[in-house]
Amino acid sequence: MDGKIVLTGDRPTGRLHLGHFVGSIKKRLELQETNALFYMIADMQALTDNAENPEKVRENVLEVALDNIACGLDPQKTVFFIQSGVPELSELTMYFLNLVTLARLERNPTVKAEMKQKGYGGNVPAGFLMYPISQAADILAFKAELVPVGDDQLPMIEQANEIVEKFNRIYGDVFKKISPLVPEEGARLSGLDGGAKMSKSLDNAIYLADDAETLRKKVMSAYTDPAHIRADDPGHIEGNVVFEYLDLFDHDKMGLDELKKRYTAGGVGDVELKERLIMNLEAKLLPIRERRAELMEDPGAVMKILGDGTARARRVAAETLAEVRRAMKIDYA
Amino acid sequence: MDGKIVLTGDRPTGRLHLGHFVGSIKKRLELQETNALFYMIADMQALTDNAENPEKVRENVLEVALDNIACGLDPQKTVFFIQSGVPELSELTMYFLNLVTLARLERNPTVKAEMKQKGYGGNVPAGFLMYPISQAADILAFKAELVPVGDDQLPMIEQANEIVEKFNRIYGDVFKKISPLVPEEGARLSGLDGGAKMSKSLDNAIYLADDAETLRKKVMSAYTDPAHIRADDPGHIEGNVVFEYLDLFDHDKMGLDELKKRYTAGGVGDVELKERLIMNLEAKLLPIRERRAELMEDPGAVMKILGDGTARARRVAAETLAEVRRAMKIDYA
Repeated sequence: MDGKIVLTGDRPTGRLHLGHFVGSIKKRLELQETNALFYMIADMQALTDNAENPEKVRENVLEVALDNIACGLDPQKTVFFIQSGVPELSELTMYFLNLVTLARLERNPTVKAEMKQKGYGGNVPAGFLMYPISQAADILAFKAELVPVGDDQLPMIEQANEIVEKFNRIYGDVFKKISPLVPEEGARLSGLDGGAKMSKSLDNAIYLADDAETLRKKVMSAYTDPAHIRADDPGHIEGNVVFEYLDLFDHDKMGLDELKKRYTAGGVGDVELKERLIMNLEAKLLPIRERRAELMEDPGAVMKILGDGTARARRVAAETLAEVRRAMKIDYA
Repeated sequence: MDGKIVLTGDRPTGRLHLGHFVGSIKKRLELQETNALFYMIADMQALTDNAENPEKVRENVLEVALDNIACGLDPQKTVFFIQSGVPELSELTMYFLNLVTLARLERNPTVKAEMKQKGYGGNVPAGFLMYPISQAADILAFKAELVPVGDDQLPMIEQANEIVEKFNRIYGDVFKKISPLVPEEGARLSGLDGGAKMSKSLDNAIYLADDAETLRKKVMSAYTDPAHIRADDPGHIEGNVVFEYLDLFDHDKMGLDELKKRYTAGGVGDVELKERLIMNLEAKLLPIRERRAELMEDPGAVMKILGDGTARARRVAAETLAEVRRAMKIDYA
């Protein structure tokens, strides 16, 4: 998967947490070394279900940029851009809207699940229902070949590929099929409360920007093994969030194995695990936190990164749109 | 209704006919004298139900421009532009999509009727279902205050005004309510076959570009009074297409009244009416046809008019979009 054009991005609806780091950012850091990575801050997509709350979207544009840069996503290697700054994406969405039926949109399992979760029913905003089409436009405007997605996002790629097929059949070969880059083992992080997913809305997340004290408090409250009441009790590893995190962040695998054995046998208090996790997470998060604070001293410089990247992204998208208009025979000039 | 910004336009799906002249173009000629008229060639809207037929759309962009200019719509007074050349319209559509629910779209009587007519059902292209939102964006991007519409288009204006209300409520006062300019008496033309509406798809139309011979043939075939078999029979005026057209195009009202009396009494053959109509229509259409032929000698010049107007329209729309982004707090630069 080297030398490919890759599109990835975040919805600017909140600061990013460890779940994002494990699920997306880590992969991005790898991808940017040998691929052409476009990183999109999806403010228009965020507005599809936050139309009444644009301040939230605005504020978080900077926050998600800070989180990614602080983690090492490098504006010298990766094109950072803001979705709304590339109107070509809207234009391409409009053309794609004609190639997809309402029935097909309503069948999209990802959208269906999200609509149910939000309790929308028929009152779903039209923009929200269409967002898979807008997403296809985001990807295809850059001719991205590879898109890192969560398992739950696979139907989006399927729908995008249907658009590729239909567009090419009607107007001629312009687009190539997109390949999803599915998450590897260990790319989904449980919540601090033991819930299946770390998530802002479930309030079970460790944020990349959390300070040391907040980190400590959160880890100390983490779900371990409810059957492990006294230190002497034998403890369970399976389903124990602290061990799940240690597996990911503790590089001393021998030490960790030894701890697991002692924990399972009985005689280890949860505090020992938690202190060990705090140490490891702090080692990971301290430099990110410091880099973030540094960047925060000059938010204008970060916005300039986004501005420059957006201009660059726009040039690429404009080229694709010129090609699209030619293929569609609506290039009148 | 002087000094207002007015948006009007045609879908480039075929040449224009007398029905368009009577229903839209005549009004435009009036409006352009004392208002700021924007004339849009709605190629993107045409594609919502012609996605598989872009050549048709492309060809007719020039045709509808020729028809309008030949009738007297003046590029010095009116801004001629092509919808797809103003990507700000797509952008604004995307923002508006978040303010309208699917249920509301499905309730739009105009769209409902058109969907039924086209037999779409659930297989309606998403772009077609959304086109009222796109239309609202077309109007509001130019801050048009007045929009000439057919009776059947009133629900579109209603929906656009709901968007105005919701946008202003959430983001602050940016847009003003739109007023529909409803057609006057006599603005709807029956078809040559006596059908309620002159229309390309019903093949009952006299085109602005029809030559003299075609015009003659078509008028000679026009529906008059089926009970008026011999010249001696008394004829009916009501429902008689030739008299309907004469009422609109014959300026010798006294002579026409006298003819009507004689026709009603009996003793006038249909050919007499038809010759009279041919004379009057030819007087109307000859200069249009000649001007059209002249323009056709240099289609590049017409395309330049469209190019210049599109650039001008784009500047206006870009100003509105800057204001929209400010109001929505997504002006990051």
